Amino acid sequence: MSQTPVAAPVRVRVDLGPRSYDILIGPGLLGEAGRHLAAALPGARALVVSDETVAGLHADRLLAALSEAGIAASLLTLPPGETTKSFDHLIAVVDRILAERLERGDAVVAFGGGVIGDLSGFAAGIARRGMHLIQVPTSLLAQVDSSVGGKTGINSPCGKNLVGVFHQPALVLADTDVLDTLSEREFRAGYAEVVKYGLIDRPDFFEWLERNRAAIFAGGAARVEAVAQSCRAKAAVVAGDEREDGDRALLNLGHTFGHALESVARYDPARLVHGEGVSIGMALAHRFSVRLGLCPGQDAGRAEAHLRAAGLPTRIQEIPGDGFTLDALMDRIAQDKKVSRGALTFILTRGLGQAFVARDVSPDALRDFLLDELRA
Amino acid sequence: MSQTPVAAPVRVRVDLGPRSYDILIGPGLLGEAGRHLAAALPGARALVVSDETVAGLHADRLLAALSEAGIAASLLTLPPGETTKSFDHLIAVVDRILAERLERGDAVVAFGGGVIGDLSGFAAGIARRGMHLIQVPTSLLAQVDSSVGGKTGINSPCGKNLVGVFHQPALVLADTDVLDTLSEREFRAGYAEVVKYGLIDRPDFFEWLERNRAAIFAGGAARVEAVAQSCRAKAAVVAGDEREDGDRALLNLGHTFGHALESVARYDPARLVHGEGVSIGMALAHRFSVRLGLCPGQDAGRAEAHLRAAGLPTRIQEIPGDGFTLDALMDRIAQDKKVSRGALTFILTRGLGQAFVARDVSPDALRDFLLDELRA
Repeated sequence: MSQTPVAAPVRVRVDLGPRSYDILIGPGLLGEAGRHLAAALPGARALVVSDETVAGLHADRLLAALSEAGIAASLLTLPPGETTKSFDHLIAVVDRILAERLERGDAVVAFGGGVIGDLSGFAAGIARRGMHLIQVPTSLLAQVDSSVGGKTGINSPCGKNLVGVFHQPALVLADTDVLDTLSEREFRAGYAEVVKYGLIDRPDFFEWLERNRAAIFAGGAARVEAVAQSCRAKAAVVAGDEREDGDRALLNLGHTFGHALESVARYDPARLVHGEGVSIGMALAHRFSVRLGLCPGQDAGRAEAHLRAAGLPTRIQEIPGDGFTLDALMDRIAQDKKVSRGALTFILTRGLGQAFVARDVSPDALRDFLLDELRA
Repeated sequence: MSQTPVAAPVRVRVDLGPRSYDILIGPGLLGEAGRHLAAALPGARALVVSDETVAGLHADRLLAALSEAGIAASLLTLPPGETTKSFDHLIAVVDRILAERLERGDAVVAFGGGVIGDLSGFAAGIARRGMHLIQVPTSLLAQVDSSVGGKTGINSPCGKNLVGVFHQPALVLADTDVLDTLSEREFRAGYAEVVKYGLIDRPDFFEWLERNRAAIFAGGAARVEAVAQSCRAKAAVVAGDEREDGDRALLNLGHTFGHALESVARYDPARLVHGEGVSIGMALAHRFSVRLGLCPGQDAGRAEAHLRAAGLPTRIQEIPGDGFTLDALMDRIAQDKKVSRGALTFILTRGLGQAFVARDVSPDALRDFLLDELRA
């Protein structure tokens, strides 16, 4: 772990009226967590929820920082991995919150990647009908996406994230030093979500990523900037549509395909992690848009080339193992939350940074497209 | 069941901006449910959640009304009783919603008393991160209290309603004919919540209740009026403070004591049902207010006399069985959601219809008061 001197963190505001909050981004923030938490929630006690991997690497430092600030805190450690996003573990977190007699004004601190953030955020949203939540995301994916915006949830046998609540955090602390402990594959997977913001509606950011990819992977100022720009992009969309009644759906670029792929791969991280599914899903969304005559082939090629340059997959065939039949994929897509009254809603694009919500995609056109992808 | 000709129902608006909705109150509404649901949520499908008792008496009529209006609906029947408000049954409802592939625009119809309303409301609040909810309350308690205002939840081993969400319904249909099938004891228990609105801040309504109690119990226009006035009272408080950050706490008059009594009685309905706990709790809140020199003894006596005239209990000793020790009660009160930073928050009163939120009640004064009550 690099010992970066503490500079003033970058501050991104998520503007949601009475539910507004700050995202702080920068190196060394873990050591300052107590001070920031005490400033946001004076007098609060805390339950830190983490997984065994993250807790083993970083919990001592976080708990010491909380203790230095006079915050009474305890730690609950769960198994790592997507299967932790279950009712069983949700009940375990809720029971612990209540057994510790934490009150509404106290805080649940979600200390980990997307799984821990989604699960503990959900627990914080339902214990005593809503307690304070502090997100301390430790993966790139969680820092740029899942910790911001208030979506929480668990998986169901019917699909991913099908059960949950909207529950905004009171504060997000994104320590960019912590990302040094991620594997290359985990970092790449998070990077897919960074690229997503460029592809949705920020072509300038996409071009900046094309020039700065190597520097972002290396760490330092470019990484902080990439996280901050991603959080600004997400904050802008969330502020305009907190509960996904409209344009927030743009954030699902690549996700309807991605969730279907993850489901067929049985959420087995040896085969496919979320960011990889999103990467393939974004490439599919671009190629599908080309096929529908909406997007120039050149733009789709450039999006795909950037994802490949980052070491990310862009084709279904790159996923190890089988099961990827047309019927399996169509079935998963039909069960996606983004379906409305039987019509398929997809995020499609008219070019780099020109994504839009397509509310009435023809199932036949989709079937033809997927059949060709599976044969390619 | 009386076959009342359908008159225009009384309409009470709950004003919550984009989450505003109507409560319709009147005889014969069950037969009109399909028409009202279709008007509120055009094109929606429905899952009706009920308990065995209510479903046995009334489900045919509700399902026929939905079918006549062209609404595709299925029925999920759960065991009656407070123990149904558990994670196990919550999961069962959520799984059924997802297995039926209901979408966000479809509706969960909570068809029963407070248990069914709280449980299915919670399920509707978390399935797909929030689906539409229609409340069709069948007990007096649910019609005047639990179906209105968006509080949903289940119980935990640590206490009642400690897990849940705020999730407002899209519509409440209160058929006052259905109350004819309640036992006298169930009706009385719901009546305690009616009296509560008078005691909080509507002394005129309390006096009207003193004059019309027998007519309300008999049914007809006075009953519709009592339900409507109660819903108006609750709607006004909820509109001012949706998430209980302030004055909504007034609705907890009698509830901190009541919940403690229910907990010690192990939620055994043979010993104590919720409304009876609230009745004793309100009497205790009034006597405690007298003891603290806040409330004239005459007003407390009049409140208690009205509850007794309705056949409701007002003293801890009236609850069958034992366990009501000072320590047991103080422990339950300390675990109540209304505790904030260790200080006890109680709803106390300065006289009939003059309740207020007391945020710093001395635990010593409470202990002395309860000791005398237990000895009395």
